[in-house]
Amino acid sequence: MDKELYLSQVKKIDFDEAEKRLSKVIRKTRLIYSRELSEETNNYIYIKPENLQNTGSFKIRGAYNRIFKLTEEEKERGLIASSAGNHAQGVAYSANKAGVKATIVMPNTTPLIKVEATKRFGAEVILHGDCYDEAYLKARELEEEKGYVFIHPFNDPDVIEGQGTISLEILEELKDADYILAPIGGGGLISGIAIAAKRINPGIKIIGVEPEGARTLSNSMTYGEPVCLDKVYTIADGVAVKEPGDLTFEIIRDYVDEIVVVSDYEIMEAFLILLDNHKLIGENAGVASLAAVKKLDLKYKKIVSVISGGNIDVLTLSSMISRGLIARGRIFSFAVELPDRPGELVKISETLARENANVIKLEHNQLRSIDRFMEVELKVTVETNGPKHITKIIKALNKEGYEVFEA
Amino acid sequence: MDKELYLSQVKKIDFDEAEKRLSKVIRKTRLIYSRELSEETNNYIYIKPENLQNTGSFKIRGAYNRIFKLTEEEKERGLIASSAGNHAQGVAYSANKAGVKATIVMPNTTPLIKVEATKRFGAEVILHGDCYDEAYLKARELEEEKGYVFIHPFNDPDVIEGQGTISLEILEELKDADYILAPIGGGGLISGIAIAAKRINPGIKIIGVEPEGARTLSNSMTYGEPVCLDKVYTIADGVAVKEPGDLTFEIIRDYVDEIVVVSDYEIMEAFLILLDNHKLIGENAGVASLAAVKKLDLKYKKIVSVISGGNIDVLTLSSMISRGLIARGRIFSFAVELPDRPGELVKISETLARENANVIKLEHNQLRSIDRFMEVELKVTVETNGPKHITKIIKALNKEGYEVFEA
Repeated sequence: MDKELYLSQVKKIDFDEAEKRLSKVIRKTRLIYSRELSEETNNYIYIKPENLQNTGSFKIRGAYNRIFKLTEEEKERGLIASSAGNHAQGVAYSANKAGVKATIVMPNTTPLIKVEATKRFGAEVILHGDCYDEAYLKARELEEEKGYVFIHPFNDPDVIEGQGTISLEILEELKDADYILAPIGGGGLISGIAIAAKRINPGIKIIGVEPEGARTLSNSMTYGEPVCLDKVYTIADGVAVKEPGDLTFEIIRDYVDEIVVVSDYEIMEAFLILLDNHKLIGENAGVASLAAVKKLDLKYKKIVSVISGGNIDVLTLSSMISRGLIARGRIFSFAVELPDRPGELVKISETLARENANVIKLEHNQLRSIDRFMEVELKVTVETNGPKHITKIIKALNKEGYEVFEA
Repeated sequence: MDKELYLSQVKKIDFDEAEKRLSKVIRKTRLIYSRELSEETNNYIYIKPENLQNTGSFKIRGAYNRIFKLTEEEKERGLIASSAGNHAQGVAYSANKAGVKATIVMPNTTPLIKVEATKRFGAEVILHGDCYDEAYLKARELEEEKGYVFIHPFNDPDVIEGQGTISLEILEELKDADYILAPIGGGGLISGIAIAAKRINPGIKIIGVEPEGARTLSNSMTYGEPVCLDKVYTIADGVAVKEPGDLTFEIIRDYVDEIVVVSDYEIMEAFLILLDNHKLIGENAGVASLAAVKKLDLKYKKIVSVISGGNIDVLTLSSMISRGLIARGRIFSFAVELPDRPGELVKISETLARENANVIKLEHNQLRSIDRFMEVELKVTVETNGPKHITKIIKALNKEGYEVFEA
């Protein structure tokens, strides 16, 4: 984008004014110190819990700030936005507060619960297309056709100005923070955070976090310009954006010190850490910056990890937990073949009880072993203590004469 | 219990001193306003999130207060406690802080994760018996045998003094609170809360909450003395106590205005409200007082609901979520019988897609209908929008000629 335009847009951003504007609609989420992660990484780790924000994510900051600044004429025209998630709720909530009509285009695949939440804030929802890009095109079509004002999810100085208020709150509570980490989707959140934090303390380091399957910004940085990825593939749907904005690209290049990449597995681990240690629910995109904390080569630094949101569909939540338990070795599924005669089940059960393996699922299948009519397959799922415990259980079963197949 | 002894014990309780004592080991959990529940009940509902407390529950307050007051001689003898949950972690954590050796007897059935958490705080764990009562007897045996000091989970003025600091925090933040609700197990939490709150504001109302399957205190109140229940049966394992203490019984009789009973179903609903609206995890006992909020016949009152803890085993968490989704009509499982010929599955899939019912599980079983060789059974689980949506789906399937069996 044009250098002069970029500089003038950044210059005009006024976070203090945005903070005043937002004071009545947002919660000042307070930092939470994480003893466990601090001990593990030898740093001082703090969480900025924007999952506890109104509407369940930081998006309300940017959306409200943008909408509040509209002219009366624009407000009368009404708003349009496209989103499968948090931006939808942020816009719907803010439009409602400002008394402006809002229409949100969401992909057909959006979980019902997110559609409902958006409607509950009074917005009209149009379901269109199979992915975000199709919903986006539809929204821009309606912008033309109906004269609505389009509220961009990230590539907008007013949106960025709203998101930046997060840094003001962080540095008010923790003046000497050394690092702030935040996830990157289109780049609006990190842009606001980075400019605002460096205006207060030019020495602070800002680290962006991207999932392995959506390295949108890292990739564009390599090319030196905003590049569109062919596809994105990540469990962190909230940051599954194919192309950064031209404005956010420039800001990130100038203000962000490093981009760290995390895997889906690491995101899942971070999700469970937040759940186990802090009793908090974070969405997958929201915990990416917590996942990155473990990958930094730092010591004795004060590090703030921004949990950007908590709007995870309950079904996804449930499957995250199951996968997490398996990954941690807290659940172990295996199969054994048993001679088809009485007493075998007792023997297995006794062995498992002796090894303190709590059975949570049992499936007895006479049909599996078609080539051996005398045997049945038993599929067992047990709760365990971790990988060592699993090894112990396998050994005990082997000792009783059972071959164990991992299922 | 002896009236004079009771009165002198209560008189000696000094919450301000306890608050000073605890200031370095506990978090001052801040009230969270619940917009959704406030709107629904026409009151001002606040949550006191002790699930965000260190060790994941309020128990640390009482345990630390008790342990801190021990004599040097007692500290040298070491501590013993019995618990399957939060008290174990509270004692272990506090003993560790105070540099005292602690042994905790836990029932064999305790989830491994709770055993591990207790060990992590440096306590020795003895697994004994199949239920709390057996672990308790073992602990009292070891008290005799080894000279350990027994730390009672609730029937102890020092423990009660610690728990009462919760009221000081509540009334510091929300001076004009009208009601405080807290769950009752053995009665230690509500005893502390009630005395402390009424010393500050004698007009405040205190409501205790018991699960239907463990009406320990309601029952004892009816009899006019502490009575032991034959059995308790509730999903709220944290308050599944058979018999109140003699001290907590007297205090509750004198200081608690009402006891409200909630069902397992209502507890499950409260758990999901906390999860959906506040992104917080509460354990079943912990959310009982949130469940009770809906059962009060009040208007325009400021009501504080104490979420006592968040230490829910992740496996339980997962099953709570599934059951909650089914109960809310967000998941619908059904079976249809299909003629065993190609194309039927397509027809069903199309009908479901048209009705916007997202399929999350499909089981195709050729063996079920043994008496009709030409038919197969298809078991389907779909994500829905609620009961109305389910009716619509059933009608659409009927129209296509399928009979729907609820599974």
